[in-house]
Amino acid sequence: MGGEQLGEPLHAQVSSLRATRWFADRPVPASEIVRVLEAARWTGSARNRQPWRFLVIGDRGLLRRLSLLGGYAAHLAAAPIAVVLAVDHAVGGEDAEFDAGRAAQSLMLAAHGLGLGSCPASFFPSSNADQAGRLCKVQTPWKVRTAISLGYPAPAPPGRSAIPTGRLPLDRITRWIGC
Amino acid sequence: MGGEQLGEPLHAQVSSLRATRWFADRPVPASEIVRVLEAARWTGSARNRQPWRFLVIGDRGLLRRLSLLGGYAAHLAAAPIAVVLAVDHAVGGEDAEFDAGRAAQSLMLAAHGLGLGSCPASFFPSSNADQAGRLCKVQTPWKVRTAISLGYPAPAPPGRSAIPTGRLPLDRITRWIGC
Repeated sequence: MGGEQLGEPLHAQVSSLRATRWFADRPVPASEIVRVLEAARWTGSARNRQPWRFLVIGDRGLLRRLSLLGGYAAHLAAAPIAVVLAVDHAVGGEDAEFDAGRAAQSLMLAAHGLGLGSCPASFFPSSNADQAGRLCKVQTPWKVRTAISLGYPAPAPPGRSAIPTGRLPLDRITRWIGC
Repeated sequence: MGGEQLGEPLHAQVSSLRATRWFADRPVPASEIVRVLEAARWTGSARNRQPWRFLVIGDRGLLRRLSLLGGYAAHLAAAPIAVVLAVDHAVGGEDAEFDAGRAAQSLMLAAHGLGLGSCPASFFPSSNADQAGRLCKVQTPWKVRTAISLGYPAPAPPGRSAIPTGRLPLDRITRWIGC
């Protein structure tokens, strides 16, 4: 159930992260949330701008409202908590979302190591992203496009996902030039 | 020197990743590059679109030309190899760069675990990103905005970085709501 296999190489642990959309009815201790946020905090970013803020949401009503703001955001209502990423689009341009993706991945991998499941939700279209920002009381230039569900995993009900799983093989997505 | 401390928890290994801009004159075995790419390949993405392709560049002339296409890209010329990320902006919108950031972070963390240093370079302004795409023979809708230097680390010369290091403290970048 936990992602952490002591002694398993880091690259194997990174490769084994998968999305979790179903969560056990078990609270996540604040000390574990802090560890996860620490990993996100140390993420690198273009010119070290750190264009992110982290909103830890445990309010059930707010999680339910956020879960309605994207086609694949329902898991937010099932999670004990979610971390909303507020991203500063004024300083970073396209780098801001790239860097936010880096922080999200660090956050989810740290959670994985602590036995926590996670899944990102995108708020779309942009009117929904704006509404998510209003619900979280986030002001311009900060934008809320992503929230990450966090919790101890529960088994997924069978046959629920409409999204194909697996990944393209490496030889279809890689080209080697001069090496 | 390597990032991997056997038995060190995953969240601590994630938190300890730092950028490496100086590299030893030591080739990176193809088997290690494949491990790093495998970690990137398994990254999650919105609707599992996998909006990325990986170009592994070992050609010295190409690395030198790419190193001139951004204010902080010089390290590409110092690295034994770089992985250029081609990202499909047609399918993903802003999700595409967010997802590319996730893949980049997985790639750099896997490298960290194998004792490899890494540093991302952004190609900017957009005319430079377009030129990077042409140099790498990448066609629309694929865009090249980022390359990641990879290699075994060498000590950095003293006093070289113009960018502040460290990170904002957690209480300045976090808000807790309803938990």
